[in-house]
Amino acid sequence: MTHSPLDTTPDAPEAGSADAATQVTEEQSVVTSAADAAARAHAASTPFALTDRAARADALLAVADALAADADTLVPVGLRETGLAEARLRGELNRTVVQLRLFADTVRAGDYLDVRIDEADPGFALGARPDLRRYLVPVGPVVNFAASNFPFAFSVAGGDTAAALAAGCPVILKAHPGHPELSRLTAQVVVRALAEAGMPDGTFQLIEGQDAGIEALRDPRVAAGSFTGSLGAGRALADIAASRPAPIPFFGELGSVNPVFVTADGLVSAGGADALAAGFVASVSGSAGQLCTKPGFLFVPTGTLAQLDAPIREAAEGVAAHRLLYPKITSGYVERRDTILGVEGVRPVAAGTVEVDDDGHGWVTPTIVSVDLDTLLSAGEDLLDEAFGPLSIVVEYDPATTDLAALVPELFPGSLTATVYAGDTEQSDDLDRLVFALSRHAGRVLFGGWPTGVAVTPAMQHGGPWPATTNDSSTSVGTAALLRFLRPVAFQSAPDRMLPPELRDGNPSSVPRATAPAGESTSWGSTSV
Amino acid sequence: MTHSPLDTTPDAPEAGSADAATQVTEEQSVVTSAADAAARAHAASTPFALTDRAARADALLAVADALAADADTLVPVGLRETGLAEARLRGELNRTVVQLRLFADTVRAGDYLDVRIDEADPGFALGARPDLRRYLVPVGPVVNFAASNFPFAFSVAGGDTAAALAAGCPVILKAHPGHPELSRLTAQVVVRALAEAGMPDGTFQLIEGQDAGIEALRDPRVAAGSFTGSLGAGRALADIAASRPAPIPFFGELGSVNPVFVTADGLVSAGGADALAAGFVASVSGSAGQLCTKPGFLFVPTGTLAQLDAPIREAAEGVAAHRLLYPKITSGYVERRDTILGVEGVRPVAAGTVEVDDDGHGWVTPTIVSVDLDTLLSAGEDLLDEAFGPLSIVVEYDPATTDLAALVPELFPGSLTATVYAGDTEQSDDLDRLVFALSRHAGRVLFGGWPTGVAVTPAMQHGGPWPATTNDSSTSVGTAALLRFLRPVAFQSAPDRMLPPELRDGNPSSVPRATAPAGESTSWGSTSV
Repeated sequence: MTHSPLDTTPDAPEAGSADAATQVTEEQSVVTSAADAAARAHAASTPFALTDRAARADALLAVADALAADADTLVPVGLRETGLAEARLRGELNRTVVQLRLFADTVRAGDYLDVRIDEADPGFALGARPDLRRYLVPVGPVVNFAASNFPFAFSVAGGDTAAALAAGCPVILKAHPGHPELSRLTAQVVVRALAEAGMPDGTFQLIEGQDAGIEALRDPRVAAGSFTGSLGAGRALADIAASRPAPIPFFGELGSVNPVFVTADGLVSAGGADALAAGFVASVSGSAGQLCTKPGFLFVPTGTLAQLDAPIREAAEGVAAHRLLYPKITSGYVERRDTILGVEGVRPVAAGTVEVDDDGHGWVTPTIVSVDLDTLLSAGEDLLDEAFGPLSIVVEYDPATTDLAALVPELFPGSLTATVYAGDTEQSDDLDRLVFALSRHAGRVLFGGWPTGVAVTPAMQHGGPWPATTNDSSTSVGTAALLRFLRPVAFQSAPDRMLPPELRDGNPSSVPRATAPAGESTSWGSTSV
Repeated sequence: MTHSPLDTTPDAPEAGSADAATQVTEEQSVVTSAADAAARAHAASTPFALTDRAARADALLAVADALAADADTLVPVGLRETGLAEARLRGELNRTVVQLRLFADTVRAGDYLDVRIDEADPGFALGARPDLRRYLVPVGPVVNFAASNFPFAFSVAGGDTAAALAAGCPVILKAHPGHPELSRLTAQVVVRALAEAGMPDGTFQLIEGQDAGIEALRDPRVAAGSFTGSLGAGRALADIAASRPAPIPFFGELGSVNPVFVTADGLVSAGGADALAAGFVASVSGSAGQLCTKPGFLFVPTGTLAQLDAPIREAAEGVAAHRLLYPKITSGYVERRDTILGVEGVRPVAAGTVEVDDDGHGWVTPTIVSVDLDTLLSAGEDLLDEAFGPLSIVVEYDPATTDLAALVPELFPGSLTATVYAGDTEQSDDLDRLVFALSRHAGRVLFGGWPTGVAVTPAMQHGGPWPATTNDSSTSVGTAALLRFLRPVAFQSAPDRMLPPELRDGNPSSVPRATAPAGESTSWGSTSV
């Protein structure tokens, strides 16, 4: 078994207990000020970028192994701080470990470098062309704002950190206040594993507090930002990044309502009303609905609701009360839920409950409501805005008179996901148009299944048009996520000895390369110069 | 010969002549208001995105052929409106034609789609993984702000237009006021060629005036912006794009000073002082220095200036006076030149001239000055800001005591290019550090040669850290430029019939695809779930 850097960590005090201050003092070595973090990340930037890819891959594996080895220390702290279930947190930690390994494989393979080599060509259509070699280089220090709802997979050692480290960028991690102790413990694991793997001091650092996060994002030594959280906070940070004296890219994953559409023939492919209801309620209520991909809307043909009503209510009433992550989530959920329930024409299918315990934690069961399409259209943002928590809206529409494709841009301009249940052999212009519209307004289009399952793989896309993300040309899940932290540079007429190994003659580091050979543009020879 | 849509165009009136108003009226059909342009581009967006790639490639070729066929009509208008030389404009038009053909080839090949296919895998390390297929889709209507200094290659039918059309995005082109008639004539060629190739109405439109440009950039139907021009205008537009209710990506190519460094051993590889001086002056004065890649600084070892002084002056004095593009360029150049000449310690090597004719056009010969390093460091932005026009600064430095690599981030934080002249077999830590620093602060690093030659090829990178561009992860020259106007979408568990051809089983459209086969993650099997 790998040595665990956490073996000697004292028992964690209860959050808010008298011991909390002591705990902070004992662990403060892992927490840095924004200015110090920027200075150290800046200093680490060059040596880390120059680390060869194999060593960087090994470092990612070392972090993965260290996290896996410390699961039994980390998970209980996560349980206490977040209220999430043990199976969920163990699965999430495993996902965090696996995604570090996926990025290690990605770094080692080198495809992501997008190496392009134009051979020198004296006969090029525009006149003699020099030798040009282009690949992607790390942008420099990245500040990652951790999410509350994935205390492992989108937090300290989560996807953004793994992607930035894989790209060769030092990381300044702004901890989420919802799980401060877990953040510090995880940061200790990451810092030690990277140090033991020989990575430069300052490759990974933890900062705490909103002010520190903003200060880091404004620091001229920081080259990019990433974030997973609310629309309001994400917009504020995006505006800060864009308005700096030297603007930097900011990759925010914000709000999404992930509509699901059942066509007139779709109920059969969904396995019937009972199966659809069970899957829907499970997807809405898993992790108490605190997932970016929770289906916020279920569109069903007129008359279907009568079949779904009882099974949805029964499934929802069978879900045990689940704690929400932290008090601010509770207050936000109560506010959105009250607004939705207050809209004229909204009918509860499963009323659901919200109860606040003595510690201020909200405990919830699923709330499912139904509306007709006219109500949805007239209510606007009161119904259309994301409700973060276990609430979803069933919408009945008339397939004979409703142009779903035309409604998508207005109702759902930007979502992470959109799901279609169509007939097994259904083919129609309406369906083609709906799928096309969804592909223009969501990052991932599912055919059956539920969007809350997110594969961490090369082809995953987790990002969509505003307000789903600030930057829909990127993904925050899957191996393509490291592209956010790279930029291209071209070397012209460079002596071989001055090139990075990935661009040298003979391809010593064995990366895939796209070569434009001399003479390929001769077909344009009819053009006069 | 291809039929020319311009064969019947009347002789163009002189700019500012009494006929100008008539001309505008005759041609106004090609100019649209921002609101109309956005509406038509929005309407074109879906049919154009659905056009198959072969048809889109053919349309790009049709535009290229039409422009080539109309060279003799277009070039004389460009000559009159811009003051650029005929050889330059004919070469630039050819470049414009060739880059359209390059993009046609790129669209046909389909590599740029970054197709990724994850096979369904029941044994994936994180549990059963669905079939996922990801590729890039057009973002939607793009507003391109044309540049003044490349009336063909960065204007109406220039690189940004070619890239956006190649990506499948309708284009709203905001004309540059420096060459209004050429803009309208070129737009006519583009509109007719696209229509004849069967592309949707609204695929390409021309708008005029700053207010219309801003209105288009703010229009909710517009999905991205691109720009080539000044730092001030680019920053203002970038801020508008970022502060919209729904922010959009904005790709601005702004200011760059393109430093050139001659090492202690570099003068020999440059061919000696005379050759270096001749190449330097030619690069500074070509097109009257009105190029984004003009070398604004030449660093030479102490003592070298004595050898360069006479040949630089002689070469500069041999350059004929050249008209600047339009009066605002002249006033900007005069202001920057006066500021630079007024800095204490600045010594003219070639004084240069600026004369304004009766039409308000500035005529210039090259101004080359020299300073020592201390003067440069203390003068700050007075010397470091871009001087757009035929002016450059020679800096003497002491190789024994100067750490050039350490100066790069402070003096030249972001440039399009940086050039090194080193010894033919030179190898040293200092040189390695300098090249690495330049690769972090420029988009293209040249070894010898001059940066004003820009190859339009797959490996070209024309973009660099702020203030060179607003978005250094992109290029505005070369085939990679179309990536700016694409975003990823993934299809999960889609029936083959519902997939775009590029993602279907059997790869009917023959695009390169990266496949993650089932079972590849078994090496991670030791992880507990």
